[in-house]
Amino acid sequence: MTQLLNFPSRPKSSSVVPHISLVGAGPGDPDLLTLKGLKALQSANVVLYDALIDTQLLEYCPQAVHIFVGKRANNHAMPQAEINELMVAKARQHGHVVRLKGGDPFIFGRGHEEMSYARSQGIDCQYIPGISSIQAAPGSFDIPLTSRGLSDGFWVITGTKTDGSLSEDLRQALQTSATVVILMGMNKLAQIAQICQELGKGELPAAIIQNGTTAQAQMGHGQAKNLPEIAEKNQLRNPAVIVLGEVVSLATTTPKQAAAWAAV
Amino acid sequence: MTQLLNFPSRPKSSSVVPHISLVGAGPGDPDLLTLKGLKALQSANVVLYDALIDTQLLEYCPQAVHIFVGKRANNHAMPQAEINELMVAKARQHGHVVRLKGGDPFIFGRGHEEMSYARSQGIDCQYIPGISSIQAAPGSFDIPLTSRGLSDGFWVITGTKTDGSLSEDLRQALQTSATVVILMGMNKLAQIAQICQELGKGELPAAIIQNGTTAQAQMGHGQAKNLPEIAEKNQLRNPAVIVLGEVVSLATTTPKQAAAWAAV
Repeated sequence: MTQLLNFPSRPKSSSVVPHISLVGAGPGDPDLLTLKGLKALQSANVVLYDALIDTQLLEYCPQAVHIFVGKRANNHAMPQAEINELMVAKARQHGHVVRLKGGDPFIFGRGHEEMSYARSQGIDCQYIPGISSIQAAPGSFDIPLTSRGLSDGFWVITGTKTDGSLSEDLRQALQTSATVVILMGMNKLAQIAQICQELGKGELPAAIIQNGTTAQAQMGHGQAKNLPEIAEKNQLRNPAVIVLGEVVSLATTTPKQAAAWAAV
Repeated sequence: MTQLLNFPSRPKSSSVVPHISLVGAGPGDPDLLTLKGLKALQSANVVLYDALIDTQLLEYCPQAVHIFVGKRANNHAMPQAEINELMVAKARQHGHVVRLKGGDPFIFGRGHEEMSYARSQGIDCQYIPGISSIQAAPGSFDIPLTSRGLSDGFWVITGTKTDGSLSEDLRQALQTSATVVILMGMNKLAQIAQICQELGKGELPAAIIQNGTTAQAQMGHGQAKNLPEIAEKNQLRNPAVIVLGEVVSLATTTPKQAAAWAAV
């Protein structure tokens, strides 16, 4: 980490031009930030960051004010409207605000809502993509999202829609050759397993990956009908990604730990 | 670019330990490389790179041998088996080989095949994710893959399966609320438009994004039934990403050029 701090910082602009960078921090491993994200942090005046962000990333922007806007244990998250207003107020006050979000801001991140709000207030806002856990978490255990002969594509759904329910799209997805990736689905494991069985897909290879790409990465795998047991046996919890599909058979069960590889 | 070259290089290891890093170079903009990918390039002895890679990335590894293994105009690409063998031979000869691939190696990249081959030859191989064009290309025009109330998920399919055909999964995908992202589909536009019409989705918002995230980024948009006309009118060609879904209505039609933003 220390060598990265030698990366030359940009000079701070002398006048305040309010603008916002919506930066994807990536899936967990701080080295999966992009160079563009790094540059945004280095020129930030204020950083608003979420709960799943590795705070090592904040070491790239010692010059900035750091404001936590995520959910703390036993506390409610800051309401979205409040984050929106804070973001705009800080941009007006200080100039460049980085809104640092886990994964990619445009994949289940409410990033576009934040962008729309900022622009409605006359503040320029730019999207900087981040590595999503959809490919990086399975990839921690060498599971590709596509592989010739096994899967022609993949479908990403949320286990928890705005109304709290599991997306009905899961039924459609299971009737194809697509790899199915479910985010925010850990409290729907029994329901997912049930739907798989109803559609004759109970024996589809299934994996649950927790904390993918980090030194704490863990995976459990087996058959789709046993998803609740896979989670229980391996004591898997959120943040986790569920993968259903033949590609799971390619998994390597030894965790690839970011820390170990960084030493190569 | 020049300042990035000041990023301190790692010392080359004195003994040859063959290993391969399968690095995702990202969707086009060289600043969308990850820090982890950058570090891999900086410690590479040999880099095997594809056609869609911005060769600016090779400036990060002046110490390495650079070998182009992609498709040149009017020439055939190097056969996959030959790439696999070259990768392993170079690792044995020189040590650390970076296999630099466009987008993400585990999304339609044949990355897992390369990893499997390397390991079958006793060579360690590690996956380093890259930003995929699936979110970054639409994101160049502010189209998110998901947005509350518009789309609960997204489905990524290939327009060109191993046998050259369009994935039949498209029919399933169109019967859901998912955003549909089609890669390698530019020679199937009429067929895609036809399927959309057959399923009563001819008026679904549709966009084609060429060279997303680069200074040459271009977009055409309209209705799914008019995909061939959208491409023709805007003179859009590969490499391009096709997006079908209500989220396309959120597009900003002014291209966000990487170069312009980098100057902020």
